[in-house]
Amino acid sequence: MLEIVSEHACFGGVQRFYRHDAREIGLPMRFSVFIPPQAEHGPVPALFYLAGLTCTEETFMIKAGAQRVAAELGLMLITPDTSPRGAHVEGESESWDFGVGAGFYLDATEAKWSKHYRMYSYIHELRELVEKELPVDAQRIGIFGHSMGGHGALTMALKRPDVFRSVSAFAPIAAPSQCPWGKKAFTGYLGADTTAWAQYDATALMTQAHAPFPAGILIDQGLGDKFLAEQLYPEAFEAACVTAAQPLTLRRHAGYDHGYYFISTFVEDHLRFHAKNLAA
Amino acid sequence: MLEIVSEHACFGGVQRFYRHDAREIGLPMRFSVFIPPQAEHGPVPALFYLAGLTCTEETFMIKAGAQRVAAELGLMLITPDTSPRGAHVEGESESWDFGVGAGFYLDATEAKWSKHYRMYSYIHELRELVEKELPVDAQRIGIFGHSMGGHGALTMALKRPDVFRSVSAFAPIAAPSQCPWGKKAFTGYLGADTTAWAQYDATALMTQAHAPFPAGILIDQGLGDKFLAEQLYPEAFEAACVTAAQPLTLRRHAGYDHGYYFISTFVEDHLRFHAKNLAA
Repeated sequence: MLEIVSEHACFGGVQRFYRHDAREIGLPMRFSVFIPPQAEHGPVPALFYLAGLTCTEETFMIKAGAQRVAAELGLMLITPDTSPRGAHVEGESESWDFGVGAGFYLDATEAKWSKHYRMYSYIHELRELVEKELPVDAQRIGIFGHSMGGHGALTMALKRPDVFRSVSAFAPIAAPSQCPWGKKAFTGYLGADTTAWAQYDATALMTQAHAPFPAGILIDQGLGDKFLAEQLYPEAFEAACVTAAQPLTLRRHAGYDHGYYFISTFVEDHLRFHAKNLAA
Repeated sequence: MLEIVSEHACFGGVQRFYRHDAREIGLPMRFSVFIPPQAEHGPVPALFYLAGLTCTEETFMIKAGAQRVAAELGLMLITPDTSPRGAHVEGESESWDFGVGAGFYLDATEAKWSKHYRMYSYIHELRELVEKELPVDAQRIGIFGHSMGGHGALTMALKRPDVFRSVSAFAPIAAPSQCPWGKKAFTGYLGADTTAWAQYDATALMTQAHAPFPAGILIDQGLGDKFLAEQLYPEAFEAACVTAAQPLTLRRHAGYDHGYYFISTFVEDHLRFHAKNLAA
C-alpha cells in the first residue's frame, strides 16, 4: 500500500519518500516523511506541512532545514505534494498558479476538475493513512504551510480544529477570495458563485469562528515579500482574528522575501510552537 | 565587476548570488555568498565550500542548512559553481561525471579543455576577488567540500596551507588517481601520463607533506554511501595522514548516504571546527 521510493538517514532519524495509490485523487501520489529518532520508542506527534505553488513533496524537506529541530523535539514531519500529477485535465499545465502544482487544498466541484483535484479530502486520506501505517500519535497532530500551503493549513485547521490541534503559517494566502491567485483558483475549481468560496477562505472561516485555537496561531510574514500587497492580505486575517477573539501572533519581518531562505530562518520557531501546543 | 543576481534576507544576514566575468575561465561565472550579520561591523572569517558532481553554486546554500550556524559564528560562506558553463567544448555535456558540472578543481592541460577548464586557478581568482570586494578577513580563510568538492577542498588546502588555514570534507574523492571518477577526469583533463595527476590527488599530496594542518583535518563519511567502496577511498587518505603525521578525525557514520541529508546532519560540526581553527 505504501511504497518507499527512497530513504535517507538524517539527524539520527530517517527521511523517507513514499508513493501510494490515493483513493480521493484516483491517481498515485507521492509524499515525504521525516521520522524522528524518538519514533523508535512509540508514537510521536506529527506536523503536516503544506507547500506553495509549483512545489512538490520534496521542497520543504530539501530547503527548510527543519529536520534538525524535529529530531530534537521528536516531531514527525509529513509533506504531501501540491496537486494531482498525471490527471491530464486539459489546460492543467498551462499556468504555474492553477492546475498542476496548484491544487489549493480544496475539493473541486467544477466538472472538469472534480474527479482528480480533491486535495482537501486527500490530505485527510493521507492523515488517516499515516496514522495507521506510521508511529503517529493521532491525538497530537498539527499543520502548517507556506503561501498556498499557508492558506491550506489555516483553512484545514479552521475546518477541523478537533483534528489539527495546532496551526501556523509562513506568508499565507490569507484571504484568497479577495486576491488574484485565489480568485483564479476558486473560479476554476469551484465556479463563479462566490458563496461556495468561503469554506476555503481562512479569513471568512475565522470571521465565523469562536477562538478555535486558544493557544494561539503563529504567522510569519516577510515585509520584502513581493507578493504581500497583491496576494497575501495578512491584515484581513488579523482583523478576522480580532472579531473571533482568536489569539494571533503575526510577526512582520523587515527585509525577508517569500522564499525558503525566509522559511528556514524562522522554521525552528514554528516547530517549537507546535511542540509546545501538542504537548499541552 | 560583481553583478548581484539575487539576494535574500536569511538568519539576520544576507544570501547573495553573484555573476562576474572570470579571467581564468574566460567566461561569466556564478557564485553565491552568505554574509553573516557580523560582517556589518568589519571583516569576518570565510569558508569556501566546493560542491560535488552535477551541483551548482546554489546547491549547498539551498540544501545544507548551514546559514543558521554561520550567522551564529560570524562566518561568511562562499560557494563557486562546479565547472565553466557555456564553454561549448565538444562532448562537455555527454556525461554527468566529466565536463559541465564536473570541473574537478584543476587546471586542464589537454588542448581541448585547457582554455576554459581552469577551476583550480579560478578558485584562487574568486578568493582574491571576494577578499577585495567583500568584508573578508584574508588571514582567516578555510575550505571544505563534498565528494568531488571534498577532493577539491583537500587538494587546494594541501597545495596552499598558507592560504587555506582550515580544511574539512564530506565523503571526499580522497584518492582520485585510483578510482573510476578520478581516472576518467584526470585522463581527460590532464592526459594519460599519471605523473601529472599527483598534484591533484589528496592522498598523493599528503604522502609528501609534513603535518600541514597541526589542528587537524575533519572528514565525515557515511557508511551507507553507495560510492564509498568504488570511488572514495578514505582509508587511503587516512594512511597517508599517518605517514605525514597529519592529525585526522575521520568519522564513519552508519546508515548515512552520499547526499545532502547526510551533509545537513553534520554541517554544524564542520562550521564549528573551522571557526575554532580560524580563531586560533
